[in-house]
Parts: sequence; structure tokens; C-alpha cells
Amino acid sequence: MSNRASLYQTRYGSPDMAVPAAGSPIIDHLLAHRSVRAYLPDPVGDDQLAAIVAAAQSAASSSNLHAWSVVAVRDPARKARLAELAGDQAHIGQAPLLLVWLADLARLEQVARKVGEAHVALDYLEMFEVGVIDAALAAQNAVAAAESLGLGTVYIGAMRNRPEDVAAELQLPPRVVAVFGLCVGTPDPAQPAAVKPRPPQSVVLHHETYSLPRQAAGLEQYDGAMAAFYASQGMQVRGSWSNHSAKRVRDTAALSGRDRLVAALNALGFPLR
Amino acid sequence: MSNRASLYQTRYGSPDMAVPAAGSPIIDHLLAHRSVRAYLPDPVGDDQLAAIVAAAQSAASSSNLHAWSVVAVRDPARKARLAELAGDQAHIGQAPLLLVWLADLARLEQVARKVGEAHVALDYLEMFEVGVIDAALAAQNAVAAAESLGLGTVYIGAMRNRPEDVAAELQLPPRVVAVFGLCVGTPDPAQPAAVKPRPPQSVVLHHETYSLPRQAAGLEQYDGAMAAFYASQGMQVRGSWSNHSAKRVRDTAALSGRDRLVAALNALGFPLR
Repeated sequence: MSNRASLYQTRYGSPDMAVPAAGSPIIDHLLAHRSVRAYLPDPVGDDQLAAIVAAAQSAASSSNLHAWSVVAVRDPARKARLAELAGDQAHIGQAPLLLVWLADLARLEQVARKVGEAHVALDYLEMFEVGVIDAALAAQNAVAAAESLGLGTVYIGAMRNRPEDVAAELQLPPRVVAVFGLCVGTPDPAQPAAVKPRPPQSVVLHHETYSLPRQAAGLEQYDGAMAAFYASQGMQVRGSWSNHSAKRVRDTAALSGRDRLVAALNALGFPLR
Repeated sequence: MSNRASLYQTRYGSPDMAVPAAGSPIIDHLLAHRSVRAYLPDPVGDDQLAAIVAAAQSAASSSNLHAWSVVAVRDPARKARLAELAGDQAHIGQAPLLLVWLADLARLEQVARKVGEAHVALDYLEMFEVGVIDAALAAQNAVAAAESLGLGTVYIGAMRNRPEDVAAELQLPPRVVAVFGLCVGTPDPAQPAAVKPRPPQSVVLHHETYSLPRQAAGLEQYDGAMAAFYASQGMQVRGSWSNHSAKRVRDTAALSGRDRLVAALNALGFPLR
């Protein structure tokens, strides 16, 4: 079996995955992504960080507005406090570097004030969404860049659990909010991370128009692939991926405090009109 | 000058840009990104699309929920209608493939119904944000993958100008909405795209805590880099990057209809609680 066939089979958790004729070393690299939750203490140097941020900035930005920023947190005490705000995830404290990606409309307000313009649009949900998209595009380039330097990463969505406390810790001004965190560090070879299977392409890829019914067979297949994955990892997961996912959207308790995101954003200078 | 030094200098529009000691072929590839707005008619094949979507799916997904989908539009008539909905951008009609990236909570509702759970969390802004982030991470991997196959891309934020009309065109059910479009095709060598400079890292990268005042010098520098870029491209831009950006956030008219995004999302099944 070729290396590329193996990458596809692992990515989809499917022994009979068809491998497309098109490919490249960069696609192979992206296919091999895995989230890393165990790190060695080796620091991530400023040179590595500069290359990672250059890659992040190379992503597209809506209307070239650059409505994002990133805070690099290495101070162990600050990382520990942020870990506590983000559901006590041990790998935040363990990773030598935590990048907190921000939707940033404060810079645009400053630019508008400098040139004597109003900045009414900053109050709208659209501009918050622009900030979120810009931050996510940049972060995903950072992930590919970090992995190419031999580093591992994991996104921390729980950085949205307590937005005002995170903002206070990072001294964010109004109109700036954390979108997610990203742990970065050298993966601990004693605790290797696995590639988590994805649903068949028939679930996410549509041609010309969208269809829910066409996804059903692929979702059945995915429950099977994830059951095999849970077993191979010795994970004690009750029920299928469908059961597990449904529990994540069942009620407001599943949102870990994020059911008050609107109020938090309003308090942080995002009226979301 | 090494190729890497040239990549950094072009990316930052700065003749004296320091090149980090860390680097990789993948980072070099990301640094060379440019948005392409002129395409040859050559089709993007299903094999290329399958490799691009595999790369997209390999991005992280919040809680492994896969709250996104993508519609591949190749039908010229449908592309023309979507171009009209997205500010009449000629390159949408010209590119052989338009990918419309979707925040998709309908699949999760279906999964919850299948296993007999409620799905209260889907009504919250947090879950909309999850869908936007998931779609953006996937799309950015797709961009890197497409470029590695010799294709060019450009994001289409204007796919949010008229969300209900786009949803009708793509037959989206409630709880699914377009986040942005992405044109994909072979770049027209007769109209080569330029790498657009980015602000110095001091503007977007913060250490330990965020600061607006520390960005001021970098922003001045960026106005200079963009003025040189406008001149080199023969672009008739009135005023500096700061002037241009301020105009983009000055008033609701600058939002091209997206000032009613909340109402549109509400109508499309996102209560945004």
C-alpha cells in the first residue's frame, strides 16, 4: 500500500477508501494532521513563532482589513489561569506556548479615528463574523506551519467559556475578543496522538445544491468508523458518534457557559446589530 | 538573495524584512499565497476536488461535530446567478468552480432527531460561531491544497450580501447558511496576481497581553508598504490603506446589505440566542 493510500485510509477510517489521482506533498501533510494533547517542555522559540505568524498572516483577510490579532502566552502563571478559564484542560498548562486568536475590531476603530472617519459598521454582527473568519483562516495556516516545523497543536474552543475573564487576563480593549486558543509544542513521543477519522465526503460535499437525505448513508458509515476508532484507542465512549454528538447540542448545559455568548460579546464592545 | 528572503520581503512589502531562522517548504508555500481573480476556462476535475475536500476535512472540527458543508457549483447558469447575488464579481462567472462554504447545523439537528435527543443548543450564537469557524478552518486547508495543485483561489465574502437568496439558490434547509464563497481555477498567466503585503508582525502579534499603542508604528509602516504596492500595480486608490480601510467600516452602506445579517440569519433558522 502506498503512503498516500495509507493517509486516506487513516483519515477516513475506511479500508476501502478510493484515493484520488490528484495529490501533492502539501495535501499529504494536511491529511496527516492530528490534535496533540501531550507535550514535551521544550520551548517554542521566537524564530519558530515568527515563521508561524508569517504563515498565518499569509492567509486571505476580508477586504484586506486584518480584523484579527494573536496573543502568544508563555508565562506559566498566565497559562495556568487561562487553563482554569478554559475548562481546566491540562494540556494548556503543559504546552510551552498558547496562542490566543482574537477577533479584533479595535484596531479598525483606531484607524478610523486617526483619519477622522466614523466607524458605525463595527457595531454589526457582520463585522464580528469577519473578525472570526479572519482569525480562523490565519490560525489554520499557523497549524500547517507549526506541524511543518515538527510541532503539534490543538485548538481550544473552551477559550469562549468565560470571554470577559479571558479579556481581562489578556488586557483586551473593547471590540476585541478571543475566538479560540491553540496549544503549540513538541509532541510527547511517549503519548502519540492518533488521526481521527472524518465522515465520508458524501456527508460534507454537495454538488450544485445541498441535500440532507443524501448524507444519511455516509453518516451510518461514520458511526461505524468512529466505533472502530474508539475501540482502537481504548476510549470508553458510551454510544455512537451520533449519540455523542447529539449530547453536545442537547441543552444549554452542554454549552459550558457559552449560552451567554451574546451577553458576553455585548459587554466586550460587540453590539452585534 | 535567497528564495526565502524574497518570499518574506514580498509578503511584507519591506526591503529590510528579517527572515526567521526557522522555515519549511510548507511555510514557503503559504507565504506565496495570492488571491487570483482571472482564470482560464480549464475545468477543475472531480479528482482534484476530492483531494481538496480531503484536505479541508483534515482540519480540526470543534468537538468533532463537523458543523460545516460545502457546495461545489460548476453549472454556468447557477454560477452566474450566484455572481449576481455577490456584487456582480466577474471572476465568479469566469472561474470553472465555485465552492460555497456553509455553516451547517441542520446535519446535527438530523443526528439528534435520529437518536431521540433534543437540540436546544443549536439555537445559540455559540453554535453559529462553531459552524463559521469549522467552515473557515476547512476552507483554508482547501486553499493550500488547491494552490499545491497549481490552482488559484479567491474568497468571496459578498456571498453574505443576500443570504436568503443564496440559500434558495443552493436549496439550503433551515440552520444552514453560506459563510463565504471560494473561486477555484487555473490562474490566467496573462493576468498574473500579485502577493499583497501584510502589516509588520508587531501589528498582529502580541506577547502575554494585548496593546493598541504598540501597533501604531507598524501601522504607519504598513500605510507606506501599501502605497508602494498600489503604485507598483497601477491601482488608482485614493488615500492610504488607513483611509481605504476606514471607509470600509464608516457606515452601514459600506456593508453592502450585510447590516441586516441578524435578520437574515433569524429567517434562515439561526435564532442566535
